Amino acid sequence: MEKDITIKPLSEIDYLKIHGRTTGDLSPLTLFWTASGIELNAKGAELWIEVEVDYEQYEPWISIVINSTPVGRQMLTKGRYWVCIFRGMNENVIKNVHILKDVQAMNSDPSHLLQIHAVKFDGEFLPVEEKKYKIEFIGDSITSGEGAIGAKQEEDWISMWFSAIDNYAVLTANALQADYRILSQSGWGILTSWDNNPNYNIPDYYEKVCGLLTGEKNELIGAFRENDFDAWQPDIVVVNLGTNDGGAFYSPEWKDEETGKVYKQRLNNDGTFHEDDVLAFETAAVQFLNKLRQYNKNAQIIWAYGMLGTPMMPAIYRAVDQYKKNSGDQNVSIIQLPNMTEETVGARAHPGKLAHKRAAAELAEYLKQFLYK
Amino acid sequence: MEKDITIKPLSEIDYLKIHGRTTGDLSPLTLFWTASGIELNAKGAELWIEVEVDYEQYEPWISIVINSTPVGRQMLTKGRYWVCIFRGMNENVIKNVHILKDVQAMNSDPSHLLQIHAVKFDGEFLPVEEKKYKIEFIGDSITSGEGAIGAKQEEDWISMWFSAIDNYAVLTANALQADYRILSQSGWGILTSWDNNPNYNIPDYYEKVCGLLTGEKNELIGAFRENDFDAWQPDIVVVNLGTNDGGAFYSPEWKDEETGKVYKQRLNNDGTFHEDDVLAFETAAVQFLNKLRQYNKNAQIIWAYGMLGTPMMPAIYRAVDQYKKNSGDQNVSIIQLPNMTEETVGARAHPGKLAHKRAAAELAEYLKQFLYK
Amino acid sequence: MEKDITIKPLSEIDYLKIHGRTTGDLSPLTLFWTASGIELNAKGAELWIEVEVDYEQYEPWISIVINSTPVGRQMLTKGRYWVCIFRGMNENVIKNVHILKDVQAMNSDPSHLLQIHAVKFDGEFLPVEEKKYKIEFIGDSITSGEGAIGAKQEEDWISMWFSAIDNYAVLTANALQADYRILSQSGWGILTSWDNNPNYNIPDYYEKVCGLLTGEKNELIGAFRENDFDAWQPDIVVVNLGTNDGGAFYSPEWKDEETGKVYKQRLNNDGTFHEDDVLAFETAAVQFLNKLRQYNKNAQIIWAYGMLGTPMMPAIYRAVDQYKKNSGDQNVSIIQLPNMTEETVGARAHPGKLAHKRAAAELAEYLKQFLYK
Amino acid sequence: MEKDITIKPLSEIDYLKIHGRTTGDLSPLTLFWTASGIELNAKGAELWIEVEVDYEQYEPWISIVINSTPVGRQMLTKGRYWVCIFRGMNENVIKNVHILKDVQAMNSDPSHLLQIHAVKFDGEFLPVEEKKYKIEFIGDSITSGEGAIGAKQEEDWISMWFSAIDNYAVLTANALQADYRILSQSGWGILTSWDNNPNYNIPDYYEKVCGLLTGEKNELIGAFRENDFDAWQPDIVVVNLGTNDGGAFYSPEWKDEETGKVYKQRLNNDGTFHEDDVLAFETAAVQFLNKLRQYNKNAQIIWAYGMLGTPMMPAIYRAVDQYKKNSGDQNVSIIQLPNMTEETVGARAHPGKLAHKRAAAELAEYLKQFLYK
Repeated sequence: MEKDITIKPLSEIDYLKIHGRTTGDLSPLTLFWTASGIELNAKGAELWIEVEVDYEQYEPWISIVINSTPVGRQMLTKGRYWVCIFRGMNENVIKNVHILKDVQAMNSDPSHLLQIHAVKFDGEFLPVEEKKYKIEFIGDSITSGEGAIGAKQEEDWISMWFSAIDNYAVLTANALQADYRILSQSGWGILTSWDNNPNYNIPDYYEKVCGLLTGEKNELIGAFRENDFDAWQPDIVVVNLGTNDGGAFYSPEWKDEETGKVYKQRLNNDGTFHEDDVLAFETAAVQFLNKLRQYNKNAQIIWAYGMLGTPMMPAIYRAVDQYKKNSGDQNVSIIQLPNMTEETVGARAHPGKLAHKRAAAELAEYLKQFLYK
Repeated sequence: MEKDITIKPLSEIDYLKIHGRTTGDLSPLTLFWTASGIELNAKGAELWIEVEVDYEQYEPWISIVINSTPVGRQMLTKGRYWVCIFRGMNENVIKNVHILKDVQAMNSDPSHLLQIHAVKFDGEFLPVEEKKYKIEFIGDSITSGEGAIGAKQEEDWISMWFSAIDNYAVLTANALQADYRILSQSGWGILTSWDNNPNYNIPDYYEKVCGLLTGEKNELIGAFRENDFDAWQPDIVVVNLGTNDGGAFYSPEWKDEETGKVYKQRLNNDGTFHEDDVLAFETAAVQFLNKLRQYNKNAQIIWAYGMLGTPMMPAIYRAVDQYKKNSGDQNVSIIQLPNMTEETVGARAHPGKLAHKRAAAELAEYLKQFLYK
Repeated sequence: MEKDITIKPLSEIDYLKIHGRTTGDLSPLTLFWTASGIELNAKGAELWIEVEVDYEQYEPWISIVINSTPVGRQMLTKGRYWVCIFRGMNENVIKNVHILKDVQAMNSDPSHLLQIHAVKFDGEFLPVEEKKYKIEFIGDSITSGEGAIGAKQEEDWISMWFSAIDNYAVLTANALQADYRILSQSGWGILTSWDNNPNYNIPDYYEKVCGLLTGEKNELIGAFRENDFDAWQPDIVVVNLGTNDGGAFYSPEWKDEETGKVYKQRLNNDGTFHEDDVLAFETAAVQFLNKLRQYNKNAQIIWAYGMLGTPMMPAIYRAVDQYKKNSGDQNVSIIQLPNMTEETVGARAHPGKLAHKRAAAELAEYLKQFLYK
Repeated sequence: MEKDITIKPLSEIDYLKIHGRTTGDLSPLTLFWTASGIELNAKGAELWIEVEVDYEQYEPWISIVINSTPVGRQMLTKGRYWVCIFRGMNENVIKNVHILKDVQAMNSDPSHLLQIHAVKFDGEFLPVEEKKYKIEFIGDSITSGEGAIGAKQEEDWISMWFSAIDNYAVLTANALQADYRILSQSGWGILTSWDNNPNYNIPDYYEKVCGLLTGEKNELIGAFRENDFDAWQPDIVVVNLGTNDGGAFYSPEWKDEETGKVYKQRLNNDGTFHEDDVLAFETAAVQFLNKLRQYNKNAQIIWAYGMLGTPMMPAIYRAVDQYKKNSGDQNVSIIQLPNMTEETVGARAHPGKLAHKRAAAELAEYLKQFLYK
């Protein structure tokens, strides 16, 4: 069974499809973002991949999808080693193999690392289909699939509760037969994080390969390089942000220990949002739309929001109105996603598998109008 | 995070629940059957298990279930090594951890082995609930969950397509909050295997721990010891056999190379079963019912059949009639399970996840009458 | 809108499709059985039908189905009068109109009558498609759709709780695109009724148009004439009987007031069925199979049983075995229908809409093998 | 069975619950709006109601709901006559009987009339529960349930395709155990109808009992009287308008034949809405919110929109923003309802039963926060 099995560095594979925003390096390939990964059409009996894994706190997990069906999901512990993907299969049949990082880029763990060096295989690789459409999803914990796996009672913030498989973004793209990239970070927003930290906003890091990471190692492997936007221009950009900006109004202030400056999105006495603060959010949203358009000239931009409530929806509508008026650009719209319910809640009080499934059904239906025309 | 993490052999764990028929040995524990495994209530932050794995052809897989929710499923390659179950969790919270063998006992691979030696843990274990009811399932590939995972197009007979999670037996037991054991082997029947091999019948091996295995190594680790029936008396025994006995009528003869004797369940010219051969099946079925009653004095015995068609159902009814008449024992009955459809087919033309789910719904509903009285 | 609307007796309609076993008379047409009715392809704006209705206790109801979609359901009170089926529609569009009797033939109300005399219409009728297949359903209250409509709390035995629409027989036939006829009577069985009355068995009346009716009026309108079997030969006969025969074992004896003779299907002390009595059922079942074959030379005969439990299933299997052995006829088989559950129960503790839907899904799937070959 | 059955005018019934906005008159009671009707707790065996019905083009239909379960639905043709609701029931059991008008108020048919004069009954009436909450729904064809019944191919604009049963408004109220009233008219909007007619707007007629009706007869029976708002103050007002205002942008101009004035919501060359015209809509929306608040001092006002697309959503958000800023009133919010899909479309290209069910699920979930606090 294992005769003729040979090792090939990724760079020597003829037909390798890479998912997710990354540096372009293949020696090794770094998987930064949720649902980034590799896809192969493998005609052979046995396949292994060589991974290099590190972390201080938050280990990576991968899911293995064979012929579009998830068949494995496992934690990757530290080290450089071989993981068997399949063995004992008919050597004459082509298997579509897709290996996904199940965990988001980890801003808070500079050591978090998942790289693929090589494959060990006894057959040949064939071309992998390019999908007709490309969709980029930008979001927070919802888009990171936090809580999409795990029991309702789970409360720990750990890698195990993240899923790229039961994730509305991946489900939506699959339903539309589209390639996809995800940029997401739990707790982050347009203006600030859920706890009013103004540094934890997605827009500031959009241009970089994976700018929200930290640490020297990530610098060395290219996380902070400029992203090559020309190489992958999406047909649609879905922005699922605002949930943490809404939360900031209900969270304590955040103090910048260096400057002593305090940040807080304020509530009025009657429970409504302070006008100045919600305006700051709107301004940030308009700026982000401008930036998105700058880098994605022809994409439909869809703000998709509502899986964990809709307090920011009026502000999002105002921001989109403002952006359209300023820019004259009409290719921006808003869709409200179905709110999580008691039946669809997952782990960590986040949307569960069923909530993601429902959101994907609504979102895919909405996106059709922009793709199938 | 990893301070104070210590290794404990299984034999030194205070509260260890073992699922599945096994020898009683803990140094190490051998997991023979589908859905056998260990269950722990673990109060601590990080847990690993030490496995020992071997095989020539068919490797073991495990599923990891935390707080009743599947969170991981992975191939176990050869060797003796540590597998991390969780890390970074709240050390003060009790996690229910259940690790299941996803693959059946492997008659055709004498090297196939999955053992657990020890755990590495930084907390304490607490008692695991005994369920109120016990159910034993005896079956073939259906009960082994063959094809319950994987794409419809899969045709390889490999470990990857076996599932103890999306398996009607486990789903039924979970729905009824019952403990369970599974004895099953793909291709085997009551009288013969699907290809008329009379040695590949489940009844002949019922008394042993895992009698259908082969090879010296399995003898050494106790697979052929007498099973300790007193230690685990089920409330219900579900027999899901007959599918391969039916198939034998449509398969070529099997020749015993040693004796030269040829075995074949014959079809008449009009396509009906030869009377003598179907009678041989019925006789074997009656004998198996006698044997089941001998070892399970108080269990309801349920013959559950039909997920892959019902050609043997008349013979099963005759056998059960015969058994009841002979024995006076009324605690035997038959339920027809819902047939697989185009919508519910899984891998390898076997029942898929949805077929197992439907079968479990019907079977659990039927079994309630014997448990909740 | 009502200009040019003219009255036509049924006998003068060019293309009239009649559903259900009836006499052949059209002046008027009598609808005897559940789901009997008329079907028209009507190109015109407005359509009425003239009905004649009578009853002492149990009034008829009808359902109106336009273009395969139920749009109305109403009680028909006594008298001869016009019922409007539609009005104000586009006169140039063809509407498929199907009017069904929602209530079973009523053995216990000799006055129960539903006849159609004529239509009033402003357009023309076009040919109605003959379906490729024909299925006859023979049953009891389940097949009469008793309880398929109405709240769970309903206990009255009245016409309102009968449905030909949410009825597994009609749903099955529609799923298979088959024409259908239903012969059914609540409480009746193969040998006796649920309360041991040996006169209330379906087989004795099978040859007549609607032999289980009573009274002079029914004789006059032809209910007791010989049925013209040549005119409508089914591809499949579904027998859903046995439920009341099973009930008879648990019901008090029935005394024939004329002869003083007492009838009772007996239970043994251990709760099993008395051997002689269950044998009497089996004998009656074999005889009925003989009779069905006599009148339906080429039909597959399917015994479909189990929506309200399966106590008679072993006896049904024995009867079918016996029949096949005696006759050499292999075109008889058995399917177990899904048992009603707490979720699927309808009115009067009978199968509700969902139970009928599930049964139809299983039955239609099973019947496909006999039709699509 | 029919002994002692006596006629009672509605005005003499002790416990009569009236649903829907009406005049207060009982001799007879006029049912104007969709889902208006009467509810009785009837302890007796047989119940009839005396209706008076008229129309030129669009006849009324009713649905009959017994013990919360729909059991009948029928067209009511012209005349004054008795309709039997039930007969032959257990005289000692209380039946909850709810009779609903299935068809909207008919602006275009001044003759359209449904009145109830009296009941004929052999038992006694008992008190009918007041629900804890009250919800008013204001809408267009969607809220009239147009197309919620009937085949997809139906295109006629006739009464038959209207449903108060499979209507999201009724389903929502039932899910929340709330009493409800519906005010709706197909084709109408906030500012104009779908075809730019500025007279066909709901807000102008809100204060009257049923102000959008026409003709002397309707004046005589009180349709144009001031509504008694004090008598029924809702907890929630749901406004489902805007769909036809959106359509007006894509429809030809409407010319007032008397004044010669032409009305048209204009599209810009790039397909966007003309700023002045969409502003006119927003102004009308703000005015309507003001009017709603004037008459419903304590109600939550919910704008629910999206079942047939969301082109007006930005304008609705701007209008609600504007209203809240002007008034300081925070008790207004917006929910986007799930868009109809190919799977959920009903008759006349309108939301079908399944679309209404989904919308009701989302809306009920959203409304809970305002009721259960």
